[in-house]
Amino acid sequence: MAKKYVYTFGNMQAEGDAKMKNLLGGKGANLAQMCLLKLPVPAGFTITTECCTDYYANDCKLPDELSLQVWNGVDQIGKIMGAKYGDKDNPLLVSCRSGARISMPGMMDTVLNIGLSTATIPGLIKQTDNERFVYDSYRRLIMMYADVVMEKAEGKAPADGIGIRKILDIRLDNYKESKGYKSDTDLTSEDLKSLAEEFKAIIKEKLGVEFPDDAKEQLIGGVKAVFKSWMGDKAVSYRRIEKIPEDWGTAVNVQAMVFGNMGEDSATGVAFTRDPATGDNNFYGEWLINAQGEDVVAGIRTPNPLNNETKNRHNEHMLSLQESMPEVYKELCDVRNILERWYHDMLDIEFTIQHKKLYMLQCRVGKRTGTASVKMAMDMLKEGLITEQTSILRVSTEQLDELLHPILDAKDEENFKVIGNGLPAGPGGACGKIALSSEEAIRLNKNGEKAILVREETNPEDVEGMRAADGIFTARGGMTSHAALVARGWGKCCIVGSEDLSIDMATKEVNIGGNIFHEGDVISLNGSKGNVYAGEIKMVSATDSPLFKEFMAIVDKYPTLGVETNADNPADTQQALDFGAKGIGLFRIEHMFYGENSEEPLAVMRKIILSDTTEERKAYLNELLPYMKESVKSTLKIMTGKPVTIRLMDPPLHEFAPKDAAQQKTLAKKLGITIDELKTRIEALQEVNPMMGIRGVRLGILYPEISELQFRALFTAEAEARKEGFNPELEIMIPLTISVEELKHQKKLCDKIHAEVEKEQQAMINFKFGTMIEIPRATLVADQIAAITDFFSFGTNDLTQMTFGFSRDDVNSILADYTTKKILKRDPFQTIDFDGVGRLVKMAIESGRKTNPKLRIGVCGEHGGDSESVKFFYQCGINYVSCSPFRVPLARLAAAQASIERAE
Amino acid sequence: MAKKYVYTFGNMQAEGDAKMKNLLGGKGANLAQMCLLKLPVPAGFTITTECCTDYYANDCKLPDELSLQVWNGVDQIGKIMGAKYGDKDNPLLVSCRSGARISMPGMMDTVLNIGLSTATIPGLIKQTDNERFVYDSYRRLIMMYADVVMEKAEGKAPADGIGIRKILDIRLDNYKESKGYKSDTDLTSEDLKSLAEEFKAIIKEKLGVEFPDDAKEQLIGGVKAVFKSWMGDKAVSYRRIEKIPEDWGTAVNVQAMVFGNMGEDSATGVAFTRDPATGDNNFYGEWLINAQGEDVVAGIRTPNPLNNETKNRHNEHMLSLQESMPEVYKELCDVRNILERWYHDMLDIEFTIQHKKLYMLQCRVGKRTGTASVKMAMDMLKEGLITEQTSILRVSTEQLDELLHPILDAKDEENFKVIGNGLPAGPGGACGKIALSSEEAIRLNKNGEKAILVREETNPEDVEGMRAADGIFTARGGMTSHAALVARGWGKCCIVGSEDLSIDMATKEVNIGGNIFHEGDVISLNGSKGNVYAGEIKMVSATDSPLFKEFMAIVDKYPTLGVETNADNPADTQQALDFGAKGIGLFRIEHMFYGENSEEPLAVMRKIILSDTTEERKAYLNELLPYMKESVKSTLKIMTGKPVTIRLMDPPLHEFAPKDAAQQKTLAKKLGITIDELKTRIEALQEVNPMMGIRGVRLGILYPEISELQFRALFTAEAEARKEGFNPELEIMIPLTISVEELKHQKKLCDKIHAEVEKEQQAMINFKFGTMIEIPRATLVADQIAAITDFFSFGTNDLTQMTFGFSRDDVNSILADYTTKKILKRDPFQTIDFDGVGRLVKMAIESGRKTNPKLRIGVCGEHGGDSESVKFFYQCGINYVSCSPFRVPLARLAAAQASIERAE
Repeated sequence: MAKKYVYTFGNMQAEGDAKMKNLLGGKGANLAQMCLLKLPVPAGFTITTECCTDYYANDCKLPDELSLQVWNGVDQIGKIMGAKYGDKDNPLLVSCRSGARISMPGMMDTVLNIGLSTATIPGLIKQTDNERFVYDSYRRLIMMYADVVMEKAEGKAPADGIGIRKILDIRLDNYKESKGYKSDTDLTSEDLKSLAEEFKAIIKEKLGVEFPDDAKEQLIGGVKAVFKSWMGDKAVSYRRIEKIPEDWGTAVNVQAMVFGNMGEDSATGVAFTRDPATGDNNFYGEWLINAQGEDVVAGIRTPNPLNNETKNRHNEHMLSLQESMPEVYKELCDVRNILERWYHDMLDIEFTIQHKKLYMLQCRVGKRTGTASVKMAMDMLKEGLITEQTSILRVSTEQLDELLHPILDAKDEENFKVIGNGLPAGPGGACGKIALSSEEAIRLNKNGEKAILVREETNPEDVEGMRAADGIFTARGGMTSHAALVARGWGKCCIVGSEDLSIDMATKEVNIGGNIFHEGDVISLNGSKGNVYAGEIKMVSATDSPLFKEFMAIVDKYPTLGVETNADNPADTQQALDFGAKGIGLFRIEHMFYGENSEEPLAVMRKIILSDTTEERKAYLNELLPYMKESVKSTLKIMTGKPVTIRLMDPPLHEFAPKDAAQQKTLAKKLGITIDELKTRIEALQEVNPMMGIRGVRLGILYPEISELQFRALFTAEAEARKEGFNPELEIMIPLTISVEELKHQKKLCDKIHAEVEKEQQAMINFKFGTMIEIPRATLVADQIAAITDFFSFGTNDLTQMTFGFSRDDVNSILADYTTKKILKRDPFQTIDFDGVGRLVKMAIESGRKTNPKLRIGVCGEHGGDSESVKFFYQCGINYVSCSPFRVPLARLAAAQASIERAE
Repeated sequence: MAKKYVYTFGNMQAEGDAKMKNLLGGKGANLAQMCLLKLPVPAGFTITTECCTDYYANDCKLPDELSLQVWNGVDQIGKIMGAKYGDKDNPLLVSCRSGARISMPGMMDTVLNIGLSTATIPGLIKQTDNERFVYDSYRRLIMMYADVVMEKAEGKAPADGIGIRKILDIRLDNYKESKGYKSDTDLTSEDLKSLAEEFKAIIKEKLGVEFPDDAKEQLIGGVKAVFKSWMGDKAVSYRRIEKIPEDWGTAVNVQAMVFGNMGEDSATGVAFTRDPATGDNNFYGEWLINAQGEDVVAGIRTPNPLNNETKNRHNEHMLSLQESMPEVYKELCDVRNILERWYHDMLDIEFTIQHKKLYMLQCRVGKRTGTASVKMAMDMLKEGLITEQTSILRVSTEQLDELLHPILDAKDEENFKVIGNGLPAGPGGACGKIALSSEEAIRLNKNGEKAILVREETNPEDVEGMRAADGIFTARGGMTSHAALVARGWGKCCIVGSEDLSIDMATKEVNIGGNIFHEGDVISLNGSKGNVYAGEIKMVSATDSPLFKEFMAIVDKYPTLGVETNADNPADTQQALDFGAKGIGLFRIEHMFYGENSEEPLAVMRKIILSDTTEERKAYLNELLPYMKESVKSTLKIMTGKPVTIRLMDPPLHEFAPKDAAQQKTLAKKLGITIDELKTRIEALQEVNPMMGIRGVRLGILYPEISELQFRALFTAEAEARKEGFNPELEIMIPLTISVEELKHQKKLCDKIHAEVEKEQQAMINFKFGTMIEIPRATLVADQIAAITDFFSFGTNDLTQMTFGFSRDDVNSILADYTTKKILKRDPFQTIDFDGVGRLVKMAIESGRKTNPKLRIGVCGEHGGDSESVKFFYQCGINYVSCSPFRVPLARLAAAQASIERAE
């Protein structure tokens, strides 16, 4: 039996419905559904997405069996609409539109007014009694068809490289100019008729073929063009950004034309059933009298407001639809209610009014801002339209994220020109004075001024400046570079890896997309889009939203995974607690060597790593003890009663070595050695591939005294905090483990120091002992490792690095190329790679729980704050995720969504 | 029921036999077996290895049930030997010796003459009528016991840090000096008696406890001491080197003492049933009249030859056993025959003659040189003693390896002092003049002189010098460093990572262990041991051995895995063919940029990688084509009819960038840019972690033109070789794959170029398309990858790097520490890590074969030449291994052994 490629709808009946989006695309499924809801929809049919897939599989040929189904479909449209396709007396015109499973607005092509030819024009003129309208439609068809079908789909480009649409547009402009016309509406029927002929001649000349004068040929051309546009450049990049799989394909909707441009009793418009910007329960939209749909979108004319309550200062002088066609408006309000009640969501609709008759051309779930998303979810919950579960699923983590950051005022932003672009590494907006150094950012901050730290790249020594700055803008680095990680962790606006940025540190000149700036000049950043602007754009604050709190209270009714935080200082810790963190999943002990108050301990650390003998090293280690103990104790106290997982020293030692000459000189003096000797020692710490060198637990095995110091600091901190009346829950985490023997080695040291400190402190000291799982081998021997650990914490950043063989510092250009070329579906450092890294994670969980059923398993790292990754981890049976403070609410939301989705 | 810890033997009966080595240790099992073979063995019993394990599990306490079993065993010995332990009239003396599953000669401790005390001395004097003998035995017991039991096992060390044995030795020497004695034999009965009393006093003073005068206490002390010595430093390092698991434990053999020191009709000796150095079928051994076993080993006296036929110029004047005790010698010859016929192997035996009565104290399979190993295997096969399979299993790959390399003359080597030591990276020996640069090594070579290339470390630019040198000696690098890999591949003697070596390039002064050398000074290397000597040591050639060929012919009767080679030039290829390679499993296309004739292509390559635009790059790529085509074609021709697997460009591009100023200047000129601009471009190629950066297939995706060039060169080479009458079997291999999409991308380019070249050449061009599996993710998505590939080749070097997160360039110090501290059992770059990397390999094979049952699977890299790894791969179901030419015979042997072992 032939495949069913065509699904008809019309006359309050339909072969499809809203649930058939995968097959019919969003638009087709919703058109069918609106018919079933008895709404006024022009008749039509949908060619399935499957047909698109078959088309590409079949080397861009339409399936043989399609033709018959299409012409049957066309006949049925004709019957319902009382016209006949290609008929010389009463011709039917149709549109041909794309429609993927999820909306890709403006990314694919559309052809309108199909079916107009020298044969059908006279009949349509007779039927409509409107020659001008018919020729206007005809010239529109020619312009669209030449562009979309003949040039883009069939590849018949003009030899001179200028697009055919551009050529025709220029001709149209010239014509209007020659006649002294200002607007398209000035064109007369005769003008349009002669332009149409001219256009056809230009097409013949430029493209080498005739504009098809056959209605059937036109329709097939339109169908193919829509399919073809699925692989157009715009669509491909959109899919990449939105993570839409290529093999979904698009459907094609062929539908009877209705005309909003048939005079003053006709119109066209778009509307949202609620305000998509604020979420307020107002019917919100725009319409144009005597126009076709594309005119609203194109923005040629300023549209009218839909109703009185949503008028604003730009359009308060204009007539609303409510005022000019109250009957139609009332009908539209009914449609709005029917749709919201059936879809239980806010809808984005398109309508056309032809001679005062309302036609619905489209409805779909509407896009909305983060704020609107949460507002609507909460409102609809209260209205009883949706359940709590649905309200939680309605808000994406990205939308929630928006709520947590100050943003640029979108209206004001439109007044500025984008001068540069980079990776949107930290969402939200920022504006301030350019600071080229951390010192300058700090200075500005102290003066109460806002700073944007602009750097080639940032490194750990810049953290203070990054904290002081309102935004960060760098020329290098990717979405998981140092700057990006730190910025997201703090909820700070950040743009990285911008090729538009170059800095000449000698002249202190900053070049952004060809514009020259100096320190102190003001720029604005949109960290959600990656856009940079010259000058100050207004900001909108978004903190302390009661809506946010109300929403999170609902979210927390569906607990699944624990959500902890990665924090290593009191400020971050408090922030995370405020955002609902249940513990600290990652406290980097080396954090004390960066940022505020790090000078003294860092100086000691430098002496330690550049010592020549174990004895020397031990002496300096003792100097470090009080700093480390205090750093840990202060966090244990804030987190009283909640687990604090402290990871032992992780980075390669050379990271601590002083880089600048002055610091090297001071240090050499302290160590009592020459500067040359110091340089030799620093040199000896260098590694070819530091990421796979001497770091993590390897440090603790090569230099057991370094581990011992840390154990001593932790246990002392625990004992002292407890004595001060707190209830510390200390968890010790060993990084970079590859073998159970490493843990046995460290555990032995740990137990020894534990006994010593218990004796010293005359106290019982509690702790848990666990490890990071971040090297592939650890996942493969997880059964052995689990046998002697209380918990695992997957370090999915490093695990991704090693599993892919991707050095995060080096592969940004590769990652960009790989995602563009579709070799990777997405950046595995942002969303966990299910097939590869994910498989290792699953294996490790299974085998770990086999030898230790009580094993507590978490994830720390960037993936812990990524919604899809969190869902994946939930399915794997993980107990908790840990992410940076600003991602805690997102992780809580993702976790709740994961459990609701599973329950469903 | 109590565990059975004690197995008795004696009087031609035994509870154990030779098969029970795991439980009784090698010595115990063989003693039992000799009893069963009716050979004269002093009665005794063996305490099992299980008891040792229990001892350590039980915190170094002997199991409770052991005591009764021991004393029953002692009683039984007494009954057989006609004496009684601890009896004042007819006391039995026993020895207490270690005995692990496999021999660890000299690594553990022994105590002799146990049971002598003030109570038993008079009885023994009466029994033996030899007071001097009894007191000599007594002072020996005291000296051994104080050292082995009291100090080493019980930890009672003298306060001044000098060992008790040393103190007693000094006292003995002083005593002899005071009496004017020259030899121990000058000591009279009275002397010995008084010395024994003195020794006991010294022990009391220095160790704070009395020497035990109780026979029972002595024996228990001896047993514990043997167990304790299992964890002694020497034993631990030996096990590490020999890869013996720690949990095997040692057995303890308690055996009645017999005495070779009872006068001129007594003697002791050791013998090999065949010559262990040459493998000749001669009974070979040494003996001493009136001596105990330790005297032979200690080398205090020059031993006599066993028989007349094996006399040499050192001992031709001495009486052989054959001459002095012909009856006993005849009996010993019978023993030799019985043992060889029963064991079907060459044995190493120890015997004692007490009053002309022969006692067998030990027999075990004897150690032998590589040559002897092969010779014996072939001889025994011809003698019908063993089967072909056994003859193959008899020769280890290390032994076979010895056969393939010239070596230092072992006798001559003894005359030289080791002045430095490093990692034994390339086996065999070499001597020659120090060359500090490749140029100098080449110059010496051209003059017909031998060179040792001495460098801090080597890099790819040194390959010519490495080839010209007879040996390589470096201060840096590990077993898998560049120098080591290259040297082993060529069968070249090489020592790397020597901490004894430092070079001052300014003064051209070489310091080896404190000795200063200059270029042109002669040194000798033992690459099998890692030893360095000053001066010229004689060399023994070992090439073209007919024995080798004969043996390999037998090996090849048991084919299992294919053995291919890693070779990229005609010389290596020919060498590998001579060694029996069935194809080339890895031809590194970038090899053309190193070594001989590389100047021109490297110059072009440098222009390519430092080009600024794709156009520029493409132009230079075309210049490269002829070089690449010729390089590939010459190898395809030599390998006609055999597969040649060519791996596309793998290294990070910066490896090709010129490092020295002169080359940079030339290149800048060629590119028409400034030197600063060139440096900037070189800088831009640098990576933080190059091993995980832009290399392998990533290059071909970022720069498709580079892949296209390579495909074009390969296909043209194929077509031309075929036209010239050869039968090339081209296999194209993509490196560093992580995703099937990468392969699809490259395959598309490949197919395009394939079609183009077929058209150009008017010829059909055959090829296979496959990939390296060397990144963990590739093993996890192997099912997807297999679906579009003809073959997999595991790159286990890189796979090990990523799975462990070990950068081979950085973790040498870590690896050394990890194996010393027993965190890793062995270097995973030498023998594949079964638990981790091996598991990934298995998973990939299973899932790859699931989607492509015809998939051909190989391993290229160092592990392909490692015997244990080869066996592992065979079990995994791999089709072939590929290794460097000199390892091909080893891999063939390992493969045959793997199949024979499985069949058994």
